Amino acid sequence: MPPPLALTMGEPAGIGGDIALAAWTRRGEGLPPFLVIDDPERLRLLAGRLGLTVPIHPIAAAAEAAAIFSGALPVLPQGLARPVAPGRPDSANADSVRASIERAVALARSGEVGGLVTNPIHKQVMYDGGFRFPGHTEFLASLTGEPARREVMMLTCPGLRVVPVTIHVALAEAVATLRRRDIVEVGVVTARALTEDFAIARPRLALAALNPHGGEGGAMGREEIDTVGPAADELRRAGIEVLGPLPADTLFHARARQGYDAVLCMYHDQALIPLKTIDFDHGVNVTLGLPFVRTSPDHGTAFDLAGSGRASADSLIAALKLAAVIAANRAARQVVGR
Amino acid sequence: MPPPLALTMGEPAGIGGDIALAAWTRRGEGLPPFLVIDDPERLRLLAGRLGLTVPIHPIAAAAEAAAIFSGALPVLPQGLARPVAPGRPDSANADSVRASIERAVALARSGEVGGLVTNPIHKQVMYDGGFRFPGHTEFLASLTGEPARREVMMLTCPGLRVVPVTIHVALAEAVATLRRRDIVEVGVVTARALTEDFAIARPRLALAALNPHGGEGGAMGREEIDTVGPAADELRRAGIEVLGPLPADTLFHARARQGYDAVLCMYHDQALIPLKTIDFDHGVNVTLGLPFVRTSPDHGTAFDLAGSGRASADSLIAALKLAAVIAANRAARQVVGR
Repeated sequence: MPPPLALTMGEPAGIGGDIALAAWTRRGEGLPPFLVIDDPERLRLLAGRLGLTVPIHPIAAAAEAAAIFSGALPVLPQGLARPVAPGRPDSANADSVRASIERAVALARSGEVGGLVTNPIHKQVMYDGGFRFPGHTEFLASLTGEPARREVMMLTCPGLRVVPVTIHVALAEAVATLRRRDIVEVGVVTARALTEDFAIARPRLALAALNPHGGEGGAMGREEIDTVGPAADELRRAGIEVLGPLPADTLFHARARQGYDAVLCMYHDQALIPLKTIDFDHGVNVTLGLPFVRTSPDHGTAFDLAGSGRASADSLIAALKLAAVIAANRAARQVVGR
Repeated sequence: MPPPLALTMGEPAGIGGDIALAAWTRRGEGLPPFLVIDDPERLRLLAGRLGLTVPIHPIAAAAEAAAIFSGALPVLPQGLARPVAPGRPDSANADSVRASIERAVALARSGEVGGLVTNPIHKQVMYDGGFRFPGHTEFLASLTGEPARREVMMLTCPGLRVVPVTIHVALAEAVATLRRRDIVEVGVVTARALTEDFAIARPRLALAALNPHGGEGGAMGREEIDTVGPAADELRRAGIEVLGPLPADTLFHARARQGYDAVLCMYHDQALIPLKTIDFDHGVNVTLGLPFVRTSPDHGTAFDLAGSGRASADSLIAALKLAAVIAANRAARQVVGR
């Protein structure tokens, strides 16, 4: 049996606990076994508040989780500095949030868990609590001990995988800082992950143009000529099958999606608009290029929904299932020694 | 009976003739009667090439069209300078393309047709033929004799209407030139058109943010604070119901689309990506703010498909139906004297 997955606490005043409990009640929907690194007592209280029947079973080691999972939610205890009030974050708990992530990574690196699924954190609360990384991904990268690696954010939903080359910057800055080298590096990591993590032998990447109509030969912007096109050529020279750059508006309808395995997008909304338009509820965030498996639900802490019972566990469930698939693909490659 | 619609020739070497003929064969799908301003003989030849049984009926006046339409395609003859070869444009015919548009506008202004639907033209071919307008819309605007009006491009598909504030410019230029005044003017024209043309008594506009996550309070761009937000406030002060600015990636999924009647988008692909992702085949381009009704299919001349029988008439059919709806709504307003 493959090892379980580790689900982190995330911001405890957000919906992480709500959706962890709700996901366990839906374990019959083909969910892989997972453990949560969280405070057992606060999860018991939360389950009661939500009216969910979830036996909370503290465990001492990840190895216990799989046998327990069908009858109870296995929890590796992680203490909290202060009691949690849903919707009211307290930066005093930031160290616990951070510890939950560190322990999940350690378990993944030792092979005790097959990968980690991270519940959303709230950046400002973490900063106020002394956290010094821009976000989850950078923190995870620091824990690999291999700072030279390039981590890449992929977002997936059924039928579409998108990878933004520039991410959380103003649109003007995304345009001004778009570099051929970044597109190429992101493309290489993506192509490798499609093969190793998604078991696609010969992945096809599509490159979205930055400008409307793909720039129309320079009449509406030169980035396709100066930056995106040369990046596509460089990726082709590296042996990767690449389509484009193609006008972004014609790239995401159902027929077009048959033609590639992932799209490299030049800015955040170019990737996120089609993904969330197609499937708002089942988006999953995958970090490519890490030495361990990491997925997360594609939403935030949603303080307004915490403790209400109205948070949907759909995205978390999709994230758990995808983490299990990636872990299985990686394990299969190790067995056959490729 | 309402007057027929006028369908222009468009670039004769493109698919305009193909889809005009194909649309007529599908007139049983609730199509409003329309006439074509084109060369009858070339349409006869094209129908033969395509294997379509379409009796071509030259008419002398628009008033004849409705009675003829069920049994034949009514054609107001428009001569061509040179014979047409599908897929091989000839700028010698640019004057005929232009004349077809001018005659359609004249018929619409006199009330002999209820509105015009324009087949796609090819800009470079028109320029080579002496045409001096950036595109269709600017030419149509010049024919109104009211140059101070502001024309606005709306794109529609079932369930979504989008209006880009900046259109056919490089993304860097769209960001750099985004102005509050433009957003407000486009919003005012759009709100009025939703009422007058789409019969929505109290239209709700959504404003898409320019930056990812709506700029996150300035951390990822200040345009929401300095430009889009103030434009939203100004529109509200003008009595228009406005949502946003809202993060663009969360604005276009099925539930979100219930909350508004149209979205003002800040750049071309922000509008076109969701529209073409949701429905690639039935997009319609509507020009708001003209004194006559004008729609067009949301595609180009497609020289590679001309004469092949593979061009889809879906978008043209949607454009004809929408023009009839808008014409009826405008006529109803005139009758009740609002």
